[in-house]
Amino acid sequence: MRVVIAVGGNAMTAPDGSARPQDQQAAIEVAVEPIAELICAGHQVVLTHGNGPQVGNLLVKNELAASVVPPVPLDWCGAQTQATIGLLILNALGRALAARGSAVPVAAVVSRTEVAADDGAFSAPSKPIGRYLSEAEAAVMIGHGQHWQDRGERGWRRVVASPEPLRCLDVPAVLALLAAGFAVVCSGGGGIPVVADGTPGGYRGVEAVIDKDLTAALLAGALAAERLVIATDVKHVVLGWGTDSASELSGIGVSDLESLVTGGTFASGSMEPKVIAACRFVRRSGQPAAITSLDAIAGALAGVAGTIVHPDPFSRT
Amino acid sequence: MRVVIAVGGNAMTAPDGSARPQDQQAAIEVAVEPIAELICAGHQVVLTHGNGPQVGNLLVKNELAASVVPPVPLDWCGAQTQATIGLLILNALGRALAARGSAVPVAAVVSRTEVAADDGAFSAPSKPIGRYLSEAEAAVMIGHGQHWQDRGERGWRRVVASPEPLRCLDVPAVLALLAAGFAVVCSGGGGIPVVADGTPGGYRGVEAVIDKDLTAALLAGALAAERLVIATDVKHVVLGWGTDSASELSGIGVSDLESLVTGGTFASGSMEPKVIAACRFVRRSGQPAAITSLDAIAGALAGVAGTIVHPDPFSRT
Repeated sequence: MRVVIAVGGNAMTAPDGSARPQDQQAAIEVAVEPIAELICAGHQVVLTHGNGPQVGNLLVKNELAASVVPPVPLDWCGAQTQATIGLLILNALGRALAARGSAVPVAAVVSRTEVAADDGAFSAPSKPIGRYLSEAEAAVMIGHGQHWQDRGERGWRRVVASPEPLRCLDVPAVLALLAAGFAVVCSGGGGIPVVADGTPGGYRGVEAVIDKDLTAALLAGALAAERLVIATDVKHVVLGWGTDSASELSGIGVSDLESLVTGGTFASGSMEPKVIAACRFVRRSGQPAAITSLDAIAGALAGVAGTIVHPDPFSRT
Repeated sequence: MRVVIAVGGNAMTAPDGSARPQDQQAAIEVAVEPIAELICAGHQVVLTHGNGPQVGNLLVKNELAASVVPPVPLDWCGAQTQATIGLLILNALGRALAARGSAVPVAAVVSRTEVAADDGAFSAPSKPIGRYLSEAEAAVMIGHGQHWQDRGERGWRRVVASPEPLRCLDVPAVLALLAAGFAVVCSGGGGIPVVADGTPGGYRGVEAVIDKDLTAALLAGALAAERLVIATDVKHVVLGWGTDSASELSGIGVSDLESLVTGGTFASGSMEPKVIAACRFVRRSGQPAAITSLDAIAGALAGVAGTIVHPDPFSRT
């Protein structure tokens, strides 16, 4: 099967959240093991990934060095994380495949995602990113045109636009590599955000971040993938999270899950975008999606582990 | 023809050397025009590029933010520049091709270059990189294990290992994309330096920079390119540079040029690596190489502009 797997940026840091280079490398070396298993089982794998902690670090560097070297825009920060995480995955997945006697090659592609220049997110930035500052420090950054919000006890935090992904521009390269037998890493961090610049075929980068799960759903549709797997730190989506009636969801039809989203069942910055992404893929492709932990992805593809979102009609299990 | 074009990192900054994001974008928008012309003329183009000014900026950020976020190693800095420059080229070359009615797609690949862990360069770092510091400031960095050298009036500068490129590991991806009709951007900054890690098929990043022209020669050979063009800021290689007997070189046989290199004719940090790279490609492939300015690359491919290095036998012109 052709499978798109979306791995969280937090799955690429140490358990305590530390994102030193060695932490990222160690975490990725663990994360690629079940992915290598899938490839060896004959699946065609496209891997995409988050980049929250990594972009956070780059923003701090931008700020602290701004008086000496020019800061780079947010789309550049996203690009930078595609290459560093791509490098780590190329090395780690290549090694994991070779250890299994597999000759499947791996490639990492610099990939852009088109968003609309008039997306409402640009006038109402809401995605928190980077480190916390004091009110006084935040005021300085606000003076530089940035948006910062009071986040309570921990302080102020920058918020940026998170527009809707419309099109993965570099899908043709991914398809060419898949056709040649590659496993492909692409659209990291939701893809580098670009907008049409008004010239025929012209695009330019734009300051934004894109939800990596929503991009994964778009990507999986464009690639005609047979499965989308959204890997997270829990095996199942849980209903009634934190209550006495909490229950793990094994299987659910897309309409039922959409109703739960509309009812505000899921946490907006956390499980909700994953659930929405899964629903979008199932709607678009008529194929199932899975939300589960990395170690359960083989089971999820076999339909025996994780939360599986099915095309309608399907009765919840 | 299949052509590898190597563009200098300085061709991607403002004329005054400024490397703000907008300077890099503006310079690349100019640089891609003759490249788009070549593609429209039917040539299969692989583009590689330098990254000196860009890596310099990243190193400063590493230093100035080191107390807040962990610095990243030099191979990561190289990776980061592949993605930011790759993004700019994807956008600019895509637009330049569309403006000419061309549907040739462009892809940028994260690409590694293998070097030997026991390369002598690691024990005698000599490639200057990044900004100048005072002796006292340099002493602090030396205390952190870095190598810095007194460079005279401008101050002290960090020197790093610049090992020999041995193999472009991601050539299979480039070949797959070429076969599918893409123009490809790869091996930027000489490629991300990696060494074999002792496991079968295993590599890990290593702190070094690789000469981008030497990597371009290796890449062109591995791709069975019919021409290597090394683009620089002058139309011709000049013999007797800065003397009364200075003369532009139009054509020369590879053996004659190698003799000039051995005789110390060319500046070691500047024209010499370009000349050596051209000679290596001609030796390896039996095809000509050119050293010229970007605006003359079409003429160079036609053999009527720039300095052409020919397979032997050839009489100097």
